[in-house]
Amino acid sequence: MIEPQLRVIGVIRTRYTEAEHTPIQASLNVEEAARVELDDRYAAALDGLDEFSHAWLLTWLGGTEGAPPVPPLRQVPFLLRRHPRQLGILATRGPRRPNPIGLSLVRLTAVERTVIRFLGVDMVDGTPLLDVKPYVSRLDSAAGDVRGGWFDTVDLEGPVTPAELDRPFR
Amino acid sequence: MIEPQLRVIGVIRTRYTEAEHTPIQASLNVEEAARVELDDRYAAALDGLDEFSHAWLLTWLGGTEGAPPVPPLRQVPFLLRRHPRQLGILATRGPRRPNPIGLSLVRLTAVERTVIRFLGVDMVDGTPLLDVKPYVSRLDSAAGDVRGGWFDTVDLEGPVTPAELDRPFR
Repeated sequence: MIEPQLRVIGVIRTRYTEAEHTPIQASLNVEEAARVELDDRYAAALDGLDEFSHAWLLTWLGGTEGAPPVPPLRQVPFLLRRHPRQLGILATRGPRRPNPIGLSLVRLTAVERTVIRFLGVDMVDGTPLLDVKPYVSRLDSAAGDVRGGWFDTVDLEGPVTPAELDRPFR
Repeated sequence: MIEPQLRVIGVIRTRYTEAEHTPIQASLNVEEAARVELDDRYAAALDGLDEFSHAWLLTWLGGTEGAPPVPPLRQVPFLLRRHPRQLGILATRGPRRPNPIGLSLVRLTAVERTVIRFLGVDMVDGTPLLDVKPYVSRLDSAAGDVRGGWFDTVDLEGPVTPAELDRPFR
């Protein structure tokens, strides 16, 4: 099988330039606004998106290399930097993954011809966009007893950057 | 920029061989079991996943071609086959997208060394696995007023296949 190849269909525009100083997790930074600039050729693909309040943005976190090397398979997540515990990368939401695809849940504020304005920013400026999927509660909410693993042991209150999680305790 | 390239890190094993007869949306087919077979080399990446009740499976829906052609940008979703309405592909969850990445929310029932057993099947047997992300309610649930666009106009009750949605009304 040929390894799957992606197309960059747009770019995310935010005020962040360095990953260490960019908030982690869009859902923890819901007040901040940013935008998607979709490539002109895909404009028609947005028809109907304005009827949704939320969407998933799938992004490429692998930089400008076509296929970055496989990262360490066990890593300490940003949120556990102060109480280090190594976890399998597929049990974390960290960006250095075998396939570095980001998944951000954002609130849509406007869908224009090729611009999507949204709230919920966890991307560096210039991050390539791979896909947009409308958020549908019935499909995207886990039902029944939900266990969040090591996330259940950490504070998930508001915006925080990796650099801030490196600060010593006071 | 070089176009991003993906790695196949495993394969999904289900009882389905044809997309038209495969249930759409994992969250609508939550009673059925299937499994992920992860490539041996990524075994360590699963450490800690067993502490989560749910996970996202990101899959490759582009077949064995490296980069399938760009599909029509407006399509009639499976769920609207009986009341056809064309929508931009980025306002649907359909599989024929500029980047054919599938996003399935599944309930984990067992995480073994390189096998993930789960409930919630919407994949054809042999579908390549790209990524696994733990589901975290705080990060993955939209808050506040949620509008589901055209999905709010359709029945989202239980398992259904594209072929079934082609049947005439009775």
